[in-house]
Parts: sequence; structure tokens; C-alpha cells
Amino acid sequence: MNTFGRNFIVSLFGESHGEAIGVVLDGVPAGIPLTVEDFASDIRRRKSGGKGTTPRIEADEPVFLSGVYEGHTTGAPLAILFKNTNTRSGDYDILQQVPRPGHADFVADVKFDSFNDPRGGGHFSGRLTLPIVAAGVVAKKAIASVLEGEDEEPVRIKGAAGKRDDPKPCDIRASIVELGGIRRGNHSEKKWRDALDAAMAEGDSLGAVVECVISEVPVGLGEPFFDSLESRISHAIFAIPGVRGIEFGDGFKAAAMKGSEHNDPFGPDGHPVKNGAGGINGGISNGEDIVFRVAFKPTSSIAKEQQTLNFVTDKMMALSVPGRHDVCFALRTPVIVEAMAALVLADQLV
Amino acid sequence: MNTFGRNFIVSLFGESHGEAIGVVLDGVPAGIPLTVEDFASDIRRRKSGGKGTTPRIEADEPVFLSGVYEGHTTGAPLAILFKNTNTRSGDYDILQQVPRPGHADFVADVKFDSFNDPRGGGHFSGRLTLPIVAAGVVAKKAIASVLEGEDEEPVRIKGAAGKRDDPKPCDIRASIVELGGIRRGNHSEKKWRDALDAAMAEGDSLGAVVECVISEVPVGLGEPFFDSLESRISHAIFAIPGVRGIEFGDGFKAAAMKGSEHNDPFGPDGHPVKNGAGGINGGISNGEDIVFRVAFKPTSSIAKEQQTLNFVTDKMMALSVPGRHDVCFALRTPVIVEAMAALVLADQLV
Amino acid sequence: MNTFGRNFIVSLFGESHGEAIGVVLDGVPAGIPLTVEDFASDIRRRKSGGKGTTPRIEADEPVFLSGVYEGHTTGAPLAILFKNTNTRSGDYDILQQVPRPGHADFVADVKFDSFNDPRGGGHFSGRLTLPIVAAGVVAKKAIASVLEGEDEEPVRIKGAAGKRDDPKPCDIRASIVELGGIRRGNHSEKKWRDALDAAMAEGDSLGAVVECVISEVPVGLGEPFFDSLESRISHAIFAIPGVRGIEFGDGFKAAAMKGSEHNDPFGPDGHPVKNGAGGINGGISNGEDIVFRVAFKPTSSIAKEQQTLNFVTDKMMALSVPGRHDVCFALRTPVIVEAMAALVLADQLV
Amino acid sequence: MNTFGRNFIVSLFGESHGEAIGVVLDGVPAGIPLTVEDFASDIRRRKSGGKGTTPRIEADEPVFLSGVYEGHTTGAPLAILFKNTNTRSGDYDILQQVPRPGHADFVADVKFDSFNDPRGGGHFSGRLTLPIVAAGVVAKKAIASVLEGEDEEPVRIKGAAGKRDDPKPCDIRASIVELGGIRRGNHSEKKWRDALDAAMAEGDSLGAVVECVISEVPVGLGEPFFDSLESRISHAIFAIPGVRGIEFGDGFKAAAMKGSEHNDPFGPDGHPVKNGAGGINGGISNGEDIVFRVAFKPTSSIAKEQQTLNFVTDKMMALSVPGRHDVCFALRTPVIVEAMAALVLADQLV
Repeated sequence: MNTFGRNFIVSLFGESHGEAIGVVLDGVPAGIPLTVEDFASDIRRRKSGGKGTTPRIEADEPVFLSGVYEGHTTGAPLAILFKNTNTRSGDYDILQQVPRPGHADFVADVKFDSFNDPRGGGHFSGRLTLPIVAAGVVAKKAIASVLEGEDEEPVRIKGAAGKRDDPKPCDIRASIVELGGIRRGNHSEKKWRDALDAAMAEGDSLGAVVECVISEVPVGLGEPFFDSLESRISHAIFAIPGVRGIEFGDGFKAAAMKGSEHNDPFGPDGHPVKNGAGGINGGISNGEDIVFRVAFKPTSSIAKEQQTLNFVTDKMMALSVPGRHDVCFALRTPVIVEAMAALVLADQLV
Repeated sequence: MNTFGRNFIVSLFGESHGEAIGVVLDGVPAGIPLTVEDFASDIRRRKSGGKGTTPRIEADEPVFLSGVYEGHTTGAPLAILFKNTNTRSGDYDILQQVPRPGHADFVADVKFDSFNDPRGGGHFSGRLTLPIVAAGVVAKKAIASVLEGEDEEPVRIKGAAGKRDDPKPCDIRASIVELGGIRRGNHSEKKWRDALDAAMAEGDSLGAVVECVISEVPVGLGEPFFDSLESRISHAIFAIPGVRGIEFGDGFKAAAMKGSEHNDPFGPDGHPVKNGAGGINGGISNGEDIVFRVAFKPTSSIAKEQQTLNFVTDKMMALSVPGRHDVCFALRTPVIVEAMAALVLADQLV
Repeated sequence: MNTFGRNFIVSLFGESHGEAIGVVLDGVPAGIPLTVEDFASDIRRRKSGGKGTTPRIEADEPVFLSGVYEGHTTGAPLAILFKNTNTRSGDYDILQQVPRPGHADFVADVKFDSFNDPRGGGHFSGRLTLPIVAAGVVAKKAIASVLEGEDEEPVRIKGAAGKRDDPKPCDIRASIVELGGIRRGNHSEKKWRDALDAAMAEGDSLGAVVECVISEVPVGLGEPFFDSLESRISHAIFAIPGVRGIEFGDGFKAAAMKGSEHNDPFGPDGHPVKNGAGGINGGISNGEDIVFRVAFKPTSSIAKEQQTLNFVTDKMMALSVPGRHDVCFALRTPVIVEAMAALVLADQLV
Repeated sequence: MNTFGRNFIVSLFGESHGEAIGVVLDGVPAGIPLTVEDFASDIRRRKSGGKGTTPRIEADEPVFLSGVYEGHTTGAPLAILFKNTNTRSGDYDILQQVPRPGHADFVADVKFDSFNDPRGGGHFSGRLTLPIVAAGVVAKKAIASVLEGEDEEPVRIKGAAGKRDDPKPCDIRASIVELGGIRRGNHSEKKWRDALDAAMAEGDSLGAVVECVISEVPVGLGEPFFDSLESRISHAIFAIPGVRGIEFGDGFKAAAMKGSEHNDPFGPDGHPVKNGAGGINGGISNGEDIVFRVAFKPTSSIAKEQQTLNFVTDKMMALSVPGRHDVCFALRTPVIVEAMAALVLADQLV
């Protein structure tokens, strides 16, 4: 459903072209300093405007409806609202007959008996990732507030076995490591710009791979059997529209390695020497960096013509998807991936 | 935690060398014919004995403790037990000082304050996948019982949009598509046998990729935003020990494709022409085959020597993991992957 | 937490004197006609204004933020907002030193480390029952939409055993049956008015008992073991501020009856002859009227002086609680009790 | 469903005359000393044998299937089994045509399409309270293990506001306070014996009221809005077969009191002076004794003849319920009430 988490609970609502979108966070610890300014940086990272992203610009100002009092969280549910202002719904009229290839138009229509809000993808829109980013900002702060106090009170999560006794707040960082099939490396930024330009010129789109690294993770997060840390993280990540795959540590390459290659003996300092497990053993964090990669498909909405079915006329037709779209929406996703990771960790820690 | 599902709920318990392992299933519809013989085929598929699998043989006979009466499910919780009989715990004594590389020994020790049952990996053992397979057998039957009645009573899940009106029970099939880095293809069975022989001779191990195809899926399974079908399936799949990645449809390749390549227009028959989305759009099943692939790491327990730390002596040492292990445990996982998929679908359907 | 339900999920947020209060409903079936006018009647029943209720009047206009499109529910989360406009927070300043007897001031302060919003009781305010009433309106419609279609498609809830085959939408009705210790009966309305006048004159307050009757209930609602229908209903009812007890059918009187008195044989028409079980056996609805009574305490905020501790000065003092309060807030609760009952039934039915 | 709890999770299974009944506990902290002897006292309190209870005697020996290793809990799921040995199912054959008045026979038959196990009430039997008692034993120990360490690490639950800084493990005690309508008081034990004798002679049965007092409760347990402590406790209590009502503190009497009578000012020592709220304000524990009372109906199975319908012949008949039954099953429930209270507190504390 639209709710995630057991102790740090996120409830999401809204449609792309509706009145507003937002999120309710339950289980946020009381006393965390929080202002609307705290959201500016992450929201800007998600915002459109750069090369390869849509020209639709929203103010994207978070409004606290509840849960914050005199600049601190209260422990009561924290509701955050974003108004939808810059909508051009007329763009979408044709799509009620012609479900866009790669979109949720067809399944939404069947599942909700044609009562779904079709404007801009409705509840299936990537715009819903905006309140996710806002939730992530709060989750990151909740994680820090729990872990900072950990030295004195290591009750629920062990800081570590003997050798690691200086825990710090987790650091969660995601970034693009592959764009349009081109891996990050020398000159990759220039190559990426060229690829974006080329795709844009053709009215086509590109996909990308995002890598997320979480460092300074306490040992012991995750629960056997069904709430392995990979289970929880992948659950959250696949909620992001457009994800096609996720892998941890050595990932799919591990399937082609021998045990002696992939295995991770402990070195003299008590740390695994390779971290091919991506910071997780048996579903439980082992204190090393958690590393995972997420495959994003290319943007589905393209100007380039596609032959597809008009379900009303029952005839094939050439479709050039109207509206303003990202050439590569994945460019906006690293901060969303971080937010999802933060929601999972916060749920384990609060 | 050890519980999964909202309406078809699985609770798992047991340790590798404890008294017994088992599963409690809640939400099983009443009136499904069920006998212990129904489990034989799937349990045999999981069982060790073939090339590349451990010689430890358990009887693996399911015992119904509750929930079955006169050969049918009663609607009350269905508890299934498997006795542990063939255990040689002495094999594992050394491992309390030397956590096995790639295993959960280290994290279990930290997380549970050294109170975890270390014998055979305890609750983290792959043996826990046996009750999962049993749960999968029941889930497959529950799915069939719901879908078979669907023609007359399509209440909760739409059979389909106009053009697909003959729903059948889902068919869930998983198999190895890559072993030791060698893809399925001409002569791959022979190449796989050779690779297994070579790894066995070296005391080493191999990984594999399993592909699962679910056909005859009703349109509309999965829930926005956080319970996308990929979210639920990946959640369950990453609970299987040794999984490193999962991808749907075109998967990681999609990230290197252009929108015009990956996109899936609807053909004249109302079906997507390529199914690169793997049967899911916007997190909701679209009626096409659901296709996903799972990367399994090579078996962690290898006879080949590894240099690793003895946490008691604080010295590095050569470790040859004792005990009986699979050269490639992934060979036993297709039926487990099927079971997990069935649990997810049953939870959506009952 | 602030979330209730498994399939029809309510998430509540807001504080008495904050920006707004509201509710997010997930799992609402698509296609239910819904306008803001549908809420007017139930909101009016809850609204203050009558004898014995507070003169604080809010506009209490629901605003749909999402989940409604062209006058129908969309199947996506339905967020409903109520602005807080008529707040006089200054009234409450003294109460940060002197927790009001009978209120949550003390526990909120301890639990949330003094970061809770204290104005008007914050998140603990009875004002939060307004979005509950709104949620109840939607739940009642969801119940009707499911049950109306039941004749053709009795899949999940049996209409009944052989003899009862004309199911109708449930009818949920709650009303005051005791006020200030005076049972409903001849002239009770006049006696009640007199009691309210007397309490008002003394600056004191009164309690009441509300009875709820749900008729036309399908047989089979409720789940063993922990989700008995009484468990779910009482869970929801005790979330209403000021509830001290709940009983079903014969209730506490049953404890003083003999088996032969309380037992409920089936009559010639297949119905129990007395319904002392209140429509529920073994936690499952039996098709008879569900009957339960709820005890509400007298309003805690009274003008009459109480000797209580000032936690800052550590001295006892005379407190006359300022602000505008109901002499008997229970007069406003029947519609809230109905809403809670509707939430429980909707969660079982959708 | 048959699962209860968010962090300390109980899953119940079994039927009265099936192979076995049992419980799986997830979220039990690792390292709690636990042996089968620890269960003897509470199981004996529940066991039949005293005046007014059934002569059916089971060995009622708990068997650990998992979760205990070398005398301590492991942190993995703890499965406890009880074999059913002393069953006389033949007693129940007639009841498939004649649902017993006051029992779940009718609803179980309808809900589960006649596939339910009817022997001895099947899954609806009071025998299911045996694993509940076992779960309660573990919950009580889990509570103690958390609270005993609280002085040093008061992380999740505040010990109290300034004046109460010596928290101890909760003490949970339940006992009969009314039997057959006769309140506990002078000579009540003799009066109760006489009443039981009289009922037994008539083949009739009696009800009772059980009061539970929980002392040394930390301030701050319970969560607004829907997980008030009363909500959680009542949810668990109404899962016990035969409960007709629950009230906290002044309970139903509060509805007839004035605010100035029921209200609870704070005395010079910072404690409420009357505890009419039963230890809970705004759904949150306030540090005073939690006090609640539970109304149990008289045993439904009576030898005394009742006129009821035979659903097969469609004729009224005289039914004298066969089998061995308690004259007053409520005599066995105090330890069950304690267990349920312990499950709720453990879920809040672990």
C-alpha cells in the first residue's frame, strides 16, 4: 500500500496534477530541530532544470501541517505538503485512449476501473518522489539523532564488536555511475553530455545506473528471515518509478565468481578485506560500507514516434508523447535513492 | 522479522541443528485439498543429492500440526513441521572463534550478543528454505483456488481489460540460466557439469543466475506506492540466503537502452510487443509474463584454504571450512524462488 | 501508532492549534461517488453548539487533497484536510506548569521530552476526532459499495448460511443511552437537560454511555484468534479520547448470569433468540445486530476549582481550567463511535 | 489474524483435538534464561482440576522447537509446542447438526464453508489459551530483562519525570473479583463455593469478573492515536474466548460521575490522588498502577437442557451439551489475562 515502515512509518498521497502531494511521517522522535530550510538542498538535487531534465519547474516549497512546534519535531505525526501549481493537464487528453508505452496508464485504468486520475500519470507520477525526498530529509536527521547518542546508550543496535567502538552517524551518498551505457570514468562527464545531447536531438531518452554507498553503519541492522536489510532496501527502491534492477556488493558479477574469489575473509584488523557482500551478511549489516546499485530505465515519455494501439479506435497509430519530460529522469534519482535508504535505516533505528 | 505477508501470512522458525524447523501459514483459504504427498515434488527439487549439492540427506517429511482436517485446509493456521535428524554439530566448534568468511557467523554473534545458536548457521542456515518451499506449495494451491473461481466472481482482481477474458491459474517456473558464468545455451549442460567438476576438485564453489517466469497473471496485482509487485517480490527474494541481485524484464540492460528501444508499445492485439518491463508497469502486473532473474553468490563454505582472522587468538590463520556443503547451492534454489514468488502472489490474491 | 487497518488504512495527523488536521485513507475502492457535501451531516452531528457543548465553532470544511477525481474516488490515497482557524492558544499558557487533571498534559510532556505541542492538548485533542468522522463517512460508503454488489459476487464474506440470503448494506447507529448516570427512558430528555444545566451552573461536567447498533451485518466478519471483531472494534473505540469501558451484548451483566440465562439457543428461524452475545460468537459476526456500549468519562476540563500540583513551583494550587469546553463532550461522540465501527468493518470488507 | 504485535510478535496455531497446539514468538531478546520449568507455575494456574473446572487433564508440557540454546533465548523465533493427547472427539459428533448455543460452531461453519475442524471447537477452543499462557511467561521475562537494565540506559521508555526515578520490572497480577454476581469481600470464598456447587447441581454455569493490576509501569507506554494502551490491551483481551466487556480505572462508573469526582488532580508528591484513570491518560501510561476489569460470560457448554434448532432436521430439540466442561471457565482466566497484558507491554518495550 502507500504506507511503509514498522516504527518509522511513511504514508504517501497525491497525484501529479491534483491539489497537492504530501507525506505523513509517524514515529519521528521528538526534539529534532527542523525547518523548511532543511529541505532546500535535497529538493534542489531532485528538481528539474539541468541538462536532460524537464523544464517543468515547481516551487516545491514544503509546508508543515503538523508535527513541528517551535522549530522542533513534537513526536506527533509530521505532515508535509507540497502544492501543485504548474500543471498543464490538457497535454494528457489523448492518452486516455492511447495508453503510453512504458507507463502505468493501462494498468491503472484496469486496476481502478477507469476511475484513476489520468492527468500526468496521477498517483503513478514521478512527482510523488518529491515527498519521498522530504521524508528522506527527516529520516536522515532521525538516524543522526539516534546514532549520535549511541556512545552512551548502545541499547538497541550494538556499535560493533570489540574493535569498532567509535560509531558516527551514517553517511548516505548516491550518484550516477553509468549513463546511457557509459560507465563513470575518465571524461565520462563529457561523454554523458554528448549522449544526452544526441538523445535529445532524436527525441529519445536514456537510462542510468545509480550507486549508493552508506558508510558508518552500525553492525546488526536488519532482521532475519524476511526483513533482511537487502529485503527492506530493495522493497523501498522498487517503489521508485522506473527501477529495473538492484544489486548489492559484487551483485550479478558474484554469480560468475568462484567462492574463493567472492568470499570475504576477515583481515588482521577484523574487517572483511573486499566487501564484496556490500556490507551485509545473512541480511544483517556487518559494519562495512553498504553498497548497492540501481538500474533505471530510460524515460518512457519520448517525442520520437512509436507505433502503438489506440484502444478506442482499435487501430495502430503513431504516438509522439506530448508534455515536458526528462531526457534522462535517472539524473534526478540519486537523492531519491538516498531518501529510500534513509527511510529503511530510520525504521530500523528509531 | 520472521513474518511475511498481509493477508496470507508466513511465520518461519527453526535452526539448522535444533529440534525442528517449520512454518505457520495464516490466511490460507478453507477447503483446499492438501496431503503430505503434495509436498513431495517440490521438496525433492530442493533436496540435496545431485551433482554439486551436499551429501547431507534429511528425510524432509512434512508434518501437519494444525490447519488440515480430513484432507482439506480448515481456514485456521496451518503449521508444518520438519524434524532435524541428521545433524553433526561437532563440525562447527572451531567456527565460534573463526567466523566463516561470507557467512552470518560474525553478525549473528554481534547482533545476538553471542546467544545465537551457532550450530550449522543456526537460524541463518539455508535449511530454513525447506519450510519456505513447503509454504510455497500451499501458496501455489491457494493461488489456483482463487483464480480458478475467478470467471464467475472477479471481485478483487480484474481478470483483464476487454481483450483477455480467459484467466487461468498462474504458472510459476524458475530455472538456472547461468552457472559459473556460463549462460544457458547449446551444450551448456555439459559445460556446467565440467565447471562443477573443476570447482569440486579445487574445493571451490560456483554461483548461478536463476530466472523465474510467471505466466497467466491477472492484470492489476501490486499496489502503489510502496507495494509495487517488484517491491514485494524483491523483498521476498532477498530473504533467501545468498542472493546478490534481482532484475525484472530487461533489467540492468535497460539502463543502457534508449527509450525507443526499451519502451513497449501495444500491438494490434492489445499486448505489449516486447515485454521488456517484465510484466509489470508502475508496480502493477500488466497481464504479460512476469520475468525476473536472481543472482546467487557461490557457496561460502569451501574446503579451499582461506586466510582469515581468529577473533580469539587475534591471529590470521588458514581456514578450510569443514562440514558437507554444496559446490553450488544455487542449483537447489529454483524451487525456492518459485515459492517466494508464490507467497507474494498469494498474499495479493487471497 | 497513528495508523489503523490492514486493507483500509487510516493515517491521522494534526494538532488542536496547529496549521491543520487531517487524515489519509488508503485502500479506498475506486469509483465511489464522493463530494464535500457527503460529509456535512456527520460533521454537523459532531460539531459543537448544542446544550452542553463548547461554543468554539470551526468551519470544519473538508478539503480533498488527493484521491478524488471528477466526483469519484480514484483508488489512490484519499487525503482530507481541515484547517484550524479559530484558535486561542493564549488560554493554555499556565498549563505548561500545571498539567491539567485528567488530561494527557503530564504524559505527553514526559513521553515527548517536553517537545510536544501543548496548545489545546496538541495531538491529544478531541479535535482529532473530526478527521476520524470524515474517515467514517468514507468507510460507510466503502462498506455500502462492497455489500451492494454482494448478491452477485459473494466471494470474501458469505452473505449468510442458508436461511439469510438477502444481505443489505450495514446500518450503523449510535446514540446516548445514559447521561450523568440517568438511563434513557421516559422523560429522560428533560432529566438530561436539567442535569446539564445543574452541572453547567457548578462549572462541573458529566459523562455518558453511548450504545451502537450495527444491523444487516454479513456472517463471518472477524478473524480468529487476535482479530476477533470485538478486538478490532474495542481497539478503535479506545482510541477515542475519554473512553473508560466497552461491553458487547449483555456485557458486564453477563458475568452475573447463569449459562442457561445468557446462552443463546437458535430458534426455529435459525436466529439466536436473545442476542446476548451482541451479534458476535467466537469473535466472528453471526449475522445478528452487533450491539456494544461505550462508557465516556465526564469532561476533564472544568471551571470548578481543583487542588492540584504546580510542577514548577512544586506547590499545590487551585486550578480553574480556562478555555471553552463541553459540559459533556460525550454528547458529540455517537457519530465518532459510528465512524470507528465503520473503519473496522470497512477494513474487513474491502 | 492469528498474529499479534509489532516488535514482539506472537503467532498462534492449533486446534483443540488436532495433533498439537503452539505459538511462535518473534522479537524475543537474546540472552534470557529460559527452561521448561519456568512455565510450570503459570500453566498450573490455568490448568483444570479445581472446583468448577473441567476434569479433562492434559500433561501440558511445553516443548521448545527453536529459539532456545543452552538454556537461553537466541534472538531467533521461539516456537513452543504442546501435544494434544487426551481427546475424546466422539463427544462432538452430534454438534455438526446442532450448533451449540453460545459457541462459535455456527459462525465457523459459515465462515470456513464447513471445512473447519469441529472437534472440541477446533481453533476456537479455549485450549488455545494454553500457548497464550506460555507466550505470557516469555513476555513477562522479556519485560523484566528490558526494565532491569533501564537505570543505566533509559533510551526508549522514560523511567519517569523527575520525582520517580527508581523503576522496577512491572508486576502483573490478575484475580477474580466477582463470581456468579457475588463481589469479592467478606466470606466471598465460601459464597463462591456454594454458588459453584449450586450451579453444578443444576448442570448450569457461572460467569465472573477478573481484575488485573499492573504496578511499577514506566511512564510513556502507548502511542497516540490508534495504539493507546487501552486499545492494545483491549485488543488482546477480547481475543480470549468468552469476554463480554473491559473497563479501565473507574470504568463504566465514570460515566455516572461528575468531572470533579472522576478527575484526578496531582498531589504534593506528583502522583494523581485517586487513579480513577486506571494508570492511563491520553492512551499513555502515567506511572500509576494500570487497573482494568474483564467480564467473562458463564460457560456456554451446559448439561442443563436447552431448546435449540437442529439445522439438518430443521426441528427444535432439547440439547444437553455432552463432554467435560468447566462450571466457571473464568476461574482459569486470571493467568490468561496476565499473559495478554504481558504481550502488550512486551511489544511496547522490546
